[in-house]
Amino acid sequence: MITKSEINIIRSLGDRAGRSEHGLFVVEGDKSIAEICNAGFKIVRMFTTTDGPGLKIRPSDMARISSHKSPPDRLALFKIPERKIDFQLINKDLTLVLDDVQDPGNLGTIIRLADWFGIKQIICSPATVDVFNQKTIQASMGSISRVNVQYIPLEDFFKQVNNIPIFGTFLEGEDIYTSQLSHPAIIVMGNEGKGISDATSKFTNRRITIPPYPHDATTVESLNVAMATAVVCSEFRRRMKK
Amino acid sequence: MITKSEINIIRSLGDRAGRSEHGLFVVEGDKSIAEICNAGFKIVRMFTTTDGPGLKIRPSDMARISSHKSPPDRLALFKIPERKIDFQLINKDLTLVLDDVQDPGNLGTIIRLADWFGIKQIICSPATVDVFNQKTIQASMGSISRVNVQYIPLEDFFKQVNNIPIFGTFLEGEDIYTSQLSHPAIIVMGNEGKGISDATSKFTNRRITIPPYPHDATTVESLNVAMATAVVCSEFRRRMKK
Repeated sequence: MITKSEINIIRSLGDRAGRSEHGLFVVEGDKSIAEICNAGFKIVRMFTTTDGPGLKIRPSDMARISSHKSPPDRLALFKIPERKIDFQLINKDLTLVLDDVQDPGNLGTIIRLADWFGIKQIICSPATVDVFNQKTIQASMGSISRVNVQYIPLEDFFKQVNNIPIFGTFLEGEDIYTSQLSHPAIIVMGNEGKGISDATSKFTNRRITIPPYPHDATTVESLNVAMATAVVCSEFRRRMKK
Repeated sequence: MITKSEINIIRSLGDRAGRSEHGLFVVEGDKSIAEICNAGFKIVRMFTTTDGPGLKIRPSDMARISSHKSPPDRLALFKIPERKIDFQLINKDLTLVLDDVQDPGNLGTIIRLADWFGIKQIICSPATVDVFNQKTIQASMGSISRVNVQYIPLEDFFKQVNNIPIFGTFLEGEDIYTSQLSHPAIIVMGNEGKGISDATSKFTNRRITIPPYPHDATTVESLNVAMATAVVCSEFRRRMKK
């Protein structure tokens, strides 16, 4: 049996405030639960409507604690690990900075990209979507265990960083394919609709852009922030191999 | 008032078979509806629970026709346009081929990428997720009007194509950053879990890969197919600018 108070706590984990208060996050479905377990996160509690691991509960209770229209067979609570920014690493390698990225899927995808391209840290503005949002976890897969995602007012972060080029990705800027890129470097990606805020752009000292093809195409939508991150990370790493 | 039969038809549009039978697709929410209208698709019918355009219906009816846990204020039906593969264009430019891409969000993102990188046609295996899936439309935004997405058994497609290099993206292949790329070219992207099938890989004559960083990294997840498409399209277009 699951208690009413447990149901309330689990439902509160749907919000960042609830996750922060309880130090827990929710993962739904066998595949995702296995991923997160394998990634080294500590499981605290598990519920199921079927056989196998977890406390057996009624489908109606699962529907209450699940965030999906079709509730899963299994739902687990994991502990949020404690981590800090490694400033030494920032002086040595590439770091991503996210300025108010809103979509949980985009954040998850960016984490997975960072993992692929060997970027160990992502610094997020406080208004960036929470990394322990379920959709973010689902999109990032096991990568969230290998990439350190930290939240800090970006002004405070930039003030602690010295002598490292800070690249901002803008709709107008130098063509990334022909720009001089550097290493170490900080790469700032902006919000889905608004791009990089004025407050943050003050800290960038290089403006780069991914040109559409053909270069003068005008009808296209902007590139989604996760796709732009893929192209930018790929280009920085390609140059480093030379 | 919305009739029971209309509700049934709209619910049937949640499946590919229903969309194909009625020649219609569903878009939910003001923002997406506006996007699709602006993209030039023809609206056939619209329902709303609030003021403004559309036939007013009860929230309980909107919940029945919506595919979301939180139903939108407005839902519209659009006409599926009739299009064909342009083989002449395939001889002149880049073409993407998708071999059983399953996730609607991935397909939508790939369409948006194609639009950005000036790729006008995407050829999909019949088992690739339907382009008029709601999630695909949402992820692709207005780009679905500018990119021609066609479904055909890939064997039939490849048999109609002559003398164009067919690049397959594999986990093991030539490093894309140092490979010789060409134009025109056909670029094949595989299924999320299984990659390119054996049947399709027989038609590819170049195997390329996006190396992780560092090159010998072993712990990372594979790159999601949409992200891989971003990197591959970016690299093909970068070379063409030289």
